[in-house]
Amino acid sequence: MFDPVEKLKEFIRHPSVSADSRFRGGMSGAQEFVSSLLGGMGFVVEVVPTALHPIILATRGGETSWPHVVIYGHYDVQPADPLNLWTTPAFEPEIRGNRIYGRGAADNKGPLMTNITAVARLLEANPKLPLRITFLVEGEEEMGSPSFPKFLEAYRERLSTADFVYLSDTALPNEQQVVLTCGLRGLALFDVQVTGAKGDLHSGLHGGVLLNPIQALAEIIATLHTPDGRVNVPGFYDAVLDVHPWERDELKKLGADEKSYAEFLGIDTFYTTPGFSPFEALRFQPTLEFNGIGGGYQGEGTKTVIPSKAFAKISCRLVPNQEPDKIKKLVMDTIRARAPKGVKVEFVDQHKGDPYVVVPPGRSNTPANQSPVLARAFRAADAAVTEIWGRAPLYLREGGSVPIIADIKRVIGLDSVMFGLFLPEDNLHAPNESFNLDVMKKGIETTQRMLAMLAAGK
Amino acid sequence: MFDPVEKLKEFIRHPSVSADSRFRGGMSGAQEFVSSLLGGMGFVVEVVPTALHPIILATRGGETSWPHVVIYGHYDVQPADPLNLWTTPAFEPEIRGNRIYGRGAADNKGPLMTNITAVARLLEANPKLPLRITFLVEGEEEMGSPSFPKFLEAYRERLSTADFVYLSDTALPNEQQVVLTCGLRGLALFDVQVTGAKGDLHSGLHGGVLLNPIQALAEIIATLHTPDGRVNVPGFYDAVLDVHPWERDELKKLGADEKSYAEFLGIDTFYTTPGFSPFEALRFQPTLEFNGIGGGYQGEGTKTVIPSKAFAKISCRLVPNQEPDKIKKLVMDTIRARAPKGVKVEFVDQHKGDPYVVVPPGRSNTPANQSPVLARAFRAADAAVTEIWGRAPLYLREGGSVPIIADIKRVIGLDSVMFGLFLPEDNLHAPNESFNLDVMKKGIETTQRMLAMLAAGK
Repeated sequence: MFDPVEKLKEFIRHPSVSADSRFRGGMSGAQEFVSSLLGGMGFVVEVVPTALHPIILATRGGETSWPHVVIYGHYDVQPADPLNLWTTPAFEPEIRGNRIYGRGAADNKGPLMTNITAVARLLEANPKLPLRITFLVEGEEEMGSPSFPKFLEAYRERLSTADFVYLSDTALPNEQQVVLTCGLRGLALFDVQVTGAKGDLHSGLHGGVLLNPIQALAEIIATLHTPDGRVNVPGFYDAVLDVHPWERDELKKLGADEKSYAEFLGIDTFYTTPGFSPFEALRFQPTLEFNGIGGGYQGEGTKTVIPSKAFAKISCRLVPNQEPDKIKKLVMDTIRARAPKGVKVEFVDQHKGDPYVVVPPGRSNTPANQSPVLARAFRAADAAVTEIWGRAPLYLREGGSVPIIADIKRVIGLDSVMFGLFLPEDNLHAPNESFNLDVMKKGIETTQRMLAMLAAGK
Repeated sequence: MFDPVEKLKEFIRHPSVSADSRFRGGMSGAQEFVSSLLGGMGFVVEVVPTALHPIILATRGGETSWPHVVIYGHYDVQPADPLNLWTTPAFEPEIRGNRIYGRGAADNKGPLMTNITAVARLLEANPKLPLRITFLVEGEEEMGSPSFPKFLEAYRERLSTADFVYLSDTALPNEQQVVLTCGLRGLALFDVQVTGAKGDLHSGLHGGVLLNPIQALAEIIATLHTPDGRVNVPGFYDAVLDVHPWERDELKKLGADEKSYAEFLGIDTFYTTPGFSPFEALRFQPTLEFNGIGGGYQGEGTKTVIPSKAFAKISCRLVPNQEPDKIKKLVMDTIRARAPKGVKVEFVDQHKGDPYVVVPPGRSNTPANQSPVLARAFRAADAAVTEIWGRAPLYLREGGSVPIIADIKRVIGLDSVMFGLFLPEDNLHAPNESFNLDVMKKGIETTQRMLAMLAAGK
């Protein structure tokens, strides 16, 4: 049996930055590392080519009566820059205290290694385990998984023999409390560009005769929220599902404290949809956010120009059952209708992702037709977490987005059990990313226990 | 005698961007170029150090009974970016048709070279010309001339022996019609910065709980104008002088056509203060303009960040008798009062300049105590323009700002005769700046003729 921490170090040493073509060697190294690890565990490994980075599909077959779990993960990582802010080099893993440092340690190499190790131990202990397992490990997650939907279409038939998806690519609120994430927000992203005069103009020679596109853009942006914090776009909330009382109750158990949260953010006033606490708003409510704005002169000092253009980058986080394309159209139509005379408005479409929600068994709104194996998986996860962590998991939606979860539901019809393993202090996407080795140890035990119970028909 | 076009090329090749410290070499190159040119013409050249870029003071003395003209110009230029929009490199002058292209070709290297050439020819033709001439050429005009007022205080006594200032740093409406500019707008510039959370945030993990500073900034900006085009700041228009009927009449002679102007700008709707045509508004009315805006992610694609900060660069063009400091305070106070809760607003003060107006001899509002040499200079300029261009000049205020003109009036008591030489199509402060060489040729003849008449006591 391999040592999971040593294996994780080896995994981190492959600099698998998917978005940067200079790291092609690191990408293939990481892919081969995962493929050969799973191959060594007795899996039939296929490396499925895509337009960019291949997807690893590793299968342990068995009787069709056995439960079939798809374990998802990704072998690519975010860029490591700014490199100078790392205490030790990003791709030279180092253990300090109970943490392993390195790019990808928490997102997603550590959590993926956690689940691979659990499966390896389980199969070593019981080579005849009555459980079908498919590892699905992609290499484009940090780029928005562009090849994934096409892959799902192509492998629809094979994957639809599965019962559910299991993954660890979400967060724990703290080291004591496990969360089984049961909802993710979707995304709708686009840029808006406003053009005034056909070129930049001298504000002395022409100032006072035409509408400045910065002003026009600001006027448009200023209409998109009400003073009390709602998105002011007709129809924006029409498809939003009501929150079930059990979800609010579950969130209360988290015991999050508004004062500490405000201090963490460095703000003195929250700004949420009326009727929602900050912790509720970021899970249950959609947003319309401005990720960037630009136009005219941005350097030091001054340049007295009336710019020809100004732009803003807009992203909406969506909740069930909002549809990204419909929301994009609503917001774009509203912007067009509200644009002042004298400027031209154009859009640059960016990507999108559906929101996702799954209801665990036994809740007031659990679907009547919920797959029995999914329900068993949730119960096994609940029991395993309670046993290993000494505390029952919470079932919470998360504010972030993992669009492939909704893609899998839409294309294959599978729901996901999301067993979060990274902590707020893990510095995902930032310098000095790290992963807590105590969490890893308990995570291995939890996944092992959960899959064992599932296989045992419990 | 030098070839003025070749000399102008040489001048443009010095990349004298005063606002950017990377161009220090270009600044000293341009300064040395002008100093040595004037030295070669027999002027006594002093290079007066300032906190930043030195001022060239070049003197041709003479009898105290001779008229004394100060010829103003500047050797610095605007930044050339965005560089990719230039057809030929900004600092490699090229002649295409009857135009010379390059940063500073029109603002102010071409017009300054025009007046230097006129003086050189005049002195070559008549070395004993009874005219005292002082060239005053600064290197901080494009930064708002921060060192200039202090210089004026220090050189007050020497400069107060002069009768008036002559310069070409204003515009011609078209190639046929000369304008002797008799008014300039002032300036009040500052940046506003809005801060939300203490750092950039992930819009999935935290979106929906706090006010985005881009939104807060847009809301502030959107309040600063009324829909009908007035600046919506209480007290903003209080000190604005009424326009004299002769000024509106003179402007009518310009025969400017709104349709052509709209086409030139590439807009379909004007946006002016009510009661003013676009041509009146840009001369007689103040503005509040947004020269730049920035915040968050501005690259390609997307980054789902809630930025910590956003900023805008604001400039007001002022008319007599608005005071820059008062206007800055009014606008800043208004912004502070209107800023939404949940963000912090700060200001970075930039430069400023007083508005200026001079009334030519013989108008209904000409001051009774107008200097006789100034009145003669205006009459000589009128006669020279009529002779060389075949049409009398117009006396119009201009929308642009040359703050040092008001400074010279305030500190030294001198008025200015402003002989405009750049055309609307010259692309000042923009890519592909150019200067019309036919205008340059007639400009040289005009200045030469005007100074000759003045020296001859006409």
